Amino acid sequence: MISRLSLNQWTTRNWSLEEAVAGCVRHGIPAIGVWREQLHECGLERAVKLLADSGLRVSSLCRGGFLTAGGEEALAGNRRAIDEAAALGAPCLVMVVGGLPGVPPGGAPGPGFSRSLAGARERVAEALAELAPYAGERGVRLALEPLHPMYCADRAVLSTLAQALDLAEAHPVEQVGVVVDTFHVWWDPRLPEQIARAGARIASYQVCDWLQPLPADVLLGRGMMGDGVIDFPPITAAVAAAGYTGDIEVEIFNADIWAADPDEVLATMKRRFAATVV
Amino acid sequence: MISRLSLNQWTTRNWSLEEAVAGCVRHGIPAIGVWREQLHECGLERAVKLLADSGLRVSSLCRGGFLTAGGEEALAGNRRAIDEAAALGAPCLVMVVGGLPGVPPGGAPGPGFSRSLAGARERVAEALAELAPYAGERGVRLALEPLHPMYCADRAVLSTLAQALDLAEAHPVEQVGVVVDTFHVWWDPRLPEQIARAGARIASYQVCDWLQPLPADVLLGRGMMGDGVIDFPPITAAVAAAGYTGDIEVEIFNADIWAADPDEVLATMKRRFAATVV
Repeated sequence: MISRLSLNQWTTRNWSLEEAVAGCVRHGIPAIGVWREQLHECGLERAVKLLADSGLRVSSLCRGGFLTAGGEEALAGNRRAIDEAAALGAPCLVMVVGGLPGVPPGGAPGPGFSRSLAGARERVAEALAELAPYAGERGVRLALEPLHPMYCADRAVLSTLAQALDLAEAHPVEQVGVVVDTFHVWWDPRLPEQIARAGARIASYQVCDWLQPLPADVLLGRGMMGDGVIDFPPITAAVAAAGYTGDIEVEIFNADIWAADPDEVLATMKRRFAATVV
Repeated sequence: MISRLSLNQWTTRNWSLEEAVAGCVRHGIPAIGVWREQLHECGLERAVKLLADSGLRVSSLCRGGFLTAGGEEALAGNRRAIDEAAALGAPCLVMVVGGLPGVPPGGAPGPGFSRSLAGARERVAEALAELAPYAGERGVRLALEPLHPMYCADRAVLSTLAQALDLAEAHPVEQVGVVVDTFHVWWDPRLPEQIARAGARIASYQVCDWLQPLPADVLLGRGMMGDGVIDFPPITAAVAAAGYTGDIEVEIFNADIWAADPDEVLATMKRRFAATVV
């Protein structure tokens, strides 16, 4: 089902948006998950035209979030991200909620550090209550992404699908959904039941493999499907049974893949997607 | 409450059992968690006498498990471990259940590899049904240790306290309990409710900190309490409220700590334990 395959732009992060769009068209990949870094380099107006002309679907905008320190600045940044998602016609804005306050992604605790995990989670719920109606008014869904628990301290205090659903269900289904990313949730003993529970809350299904052993930088432990240990078919089947019919993004953070020829990566991605995921 | 402090032997892994026992006595630490590696070096009979003469309590024997590949060999090894725990008067044998079949700890998938996580979990339940009565007859409790989900592939498909309790509750409380290890469970949004649920199932409470960022070898991301991001008091309070009054083991896997003077480590451990844990 290449018809549902989407290239998440971080998989080819050295490509500009223009290059990634051209690559998708060249390889017959019908959708793209856009990252804000490359979007800003391209410029929003140009990007809107580029994507419309390409005929590609935009499956998501990555990413908003980093809400755990509280404050108006984070909210303002997320409102800008929602506006961008609306302009692109992206159905959802992927939200990585942030780790403990004062812990930068990949870094050590610094100014503003707090050990209060419960407090950080409370800040996320509060910020979501501010942002969800704003997103809803613009036709954008906030897609809460539970991250693997090994990123709890520095990237996301949202650690399981169940926890994401607990948060999402406080809001209308068209305003707040969840992301099912195989790398982050494959280990979860409650995964089948929670995917079923998610149902129409599933805003995005992202796939990549879990490399074993992990590389030294655990952020880069994501691998091409088939190179790791994840058994994709039961997860894909559960997501389908829950009613999700949207695009399936391949999002891989991996130094070797970033160093490779992106056209080779896309060719491999298409082949592996068909062989292992669907 | 130094009266409940126990030195898990892996914290001073370069010490022999004789040295660790002498160290505990010298520093007024009243209990020790014994590892089988050093136990075998010492010899069981000598170890029994050494520990009895020392007056130390044995808080646990580490460790049994690695049951996911199935087979009689793993069961036989675990029966030997149970016998050793009984001989030492250890109240529990800590069980690290094993990762996906064919994935060695810290290694890459090899012969016998299977991606079936559900199957691996089923093997654990089956093995437990074999071992629990054997342990019960010898007065030893199997203590199921949920490991952090980042070890799911290679060390333990048992990833949360809830999952451990689901397994344990199929057996009498005196035969199968659970370990609460702060490093493995601190991130879990269900932790307070699951510690309360555990109640008398808590067989061991182990503490160490989560270092941020993790070192290149994620096995060694355990730190001295206070050096990382974990907020211990709420967890300690929950464990106490659940009724656990046993020893509290400090178990740290950390290259710097292993390279340090063990007497310095014990002095720091006592100080930090009093300041951050209880």
